Amino acid sequence: MRDEALARLEALGFSPADAAVLADHFVDAEEHGRIGHGLVRIDFLARRPDLDPSARPLRVIAEPGYERWNGNGAVGYLVLNTIVEAQLADPPATARLIVAGHTFPTGVLGYWARKLADEGLVAAVTATSNRRLAHPDGGEKLAGTNPLAIAIPSSDGRPVVADVSMGNFTYGDVLAGRAEENDLAPFGGDQAHKAFALAVGLQLLVDALTPDDGFGAVLLVANPLADPVPAFRELAVGVRVPGDR
Amino acid sequence: MRDEALARLEALGFSPADAAVLADHFVDAEEHGRIGHGLVRIDFLARRPDLDPSARPLRVIAEPGYERWNGNGAVGYLVLNTIVEAQLADPPATARLIVAGHTFPTGVLGYWARKLADEGLVAAVTATSNRRLAHPDGGEKLAGTNPLAIAIPSSDGRPVVADVSMGNFTYGDVLAGRAEENDLAPFGGDQAHKAFALAVGLQLLVDALTPDDGFGAVLLVANPLADPVPAFRELAVGVRVPGDR
Repeated sequence: MRDEALARLEALGFSPADAAVLADHFVDAEEHGRIGHGLVRIDFLARRPDLDPSARPLRVIAEPGYERWNGNGAVGYLVLNTIVEAQLADPPATARLIVAGHTFPTGVLGYWARKLADEGLVAAVTATSNRRLAHPDGGEKLAGTNPLAIAIPSSDGRPVVADVSMGNFTYGDVLAGRAEENDLAPFGGDQAHKAFALAVGLQLLVDALTPDDGFGAVLLVANPLADPVPAFRELAVGVRVPGDR
Repeated sequence: MRDEALARLEALGFSPADAAVLADHFVDAEEHGRIGHGLVRIDFLARRPDLDPSARPLRVIAEPGYERWNGNGAVGYLVLNTIVEAQLADPPATARLIVAGHTFPTGVLGYWARKLADEGLVAAVTATSNRRLAHPDGGEKLAGTNPLAIAIPSSDGRPVVADVSMGNFTYGDVLAGRAEENDLAPFGGDQAHKAFALAVGLQLLVDALTPDDGFGAVLLVANPLADPVPAFRELAVGVRVPGDR
């Protein structure tokens, strides 16, 4: 599966290294049931008229507690991967906010957050996409499904990764033919106003922090001061912990 | 209502200034339907054996992009108010993460986030409390209702404030006699695993960033680079925008 993905991505013009980053993400999504973020997305990339496989994201500002990036035409997956690698190469002493404009599509946000937690960093990641969620009472589509992923490292080597989209399914499910776009709504049934509010809050958070038009991502990366996961896992014995596979 | 609250709080030993901070929060909660976070909480404070009305929070670390606070025995409302005032007195040039240990109870998080947005800052606030949410499939209670409040300033003077608890109701509703504690669960019905995952992620985020045992709060405060709210309000005409009153 990975070899075929690599071949198709290199045929689109991606370098072997970038193709490997993309293939690893898509294969991981396939293997963990997030088929809508899996190999189907290679077709999605192939159909983009503005695809520029050689584009590289730019780090516009780098301070100890803040970085601003511009996707600069690179596909969002590669923007997030570059940001993650930059954080691992130079982790914050305490905490750092990273804002990234022109960053789309970003795939499974928990995948990128986990890479940070695997190396001992706390991470929270959100990102915008096309407005597909209306208020539960109706009206215009106002917010993307805007997932929030939170990853917490653990001394036992098993981070906890919560990764929640505010939609009742993902647009990836639509791409994968498993759902109808018209049925996409904030999750939560009669409490869907809560998921709607979170989607709006995250939408405006990203929009306010990224000055460029278009989609963006915001990452919080921090050095933990405590190691709460092992005790949490003891308390949670018998139930599925978010992100466990 | 405010005068009576002030008198009761001063009778508990709070200074007039601190009593005013508390009364304003409780009255605001009453006026906006969050009765469980309203005047009933004065009784709750009065019943706390460890209540220390003269305690002041300590700022342990202050860097441009990071602050660490310790509640130091002060009630959580006053800790958050002190943190908010410190941010307004010295706003971040770009962004700042603030972590606060020993910070409980914290009340309506959107109330504090709004104070930052009213002065032009983007804010995200979360806080932990007693573990009251189990996994939707059952088992031990693993996470607090752990609200996430996100406030975005606006050039039109009307910030958007999303403030979402991960519970199907608040513990404040229990205190107010409007709900039974045993019915408290992650919101979302057959998608409650999503609210559960968010509650767990926020719980461990706060626990990992605050080294002290007990409850804590985490705030992200940032200087916006864009002003997305007016255009959002145009798109959202006819529906209730989160936080609007």
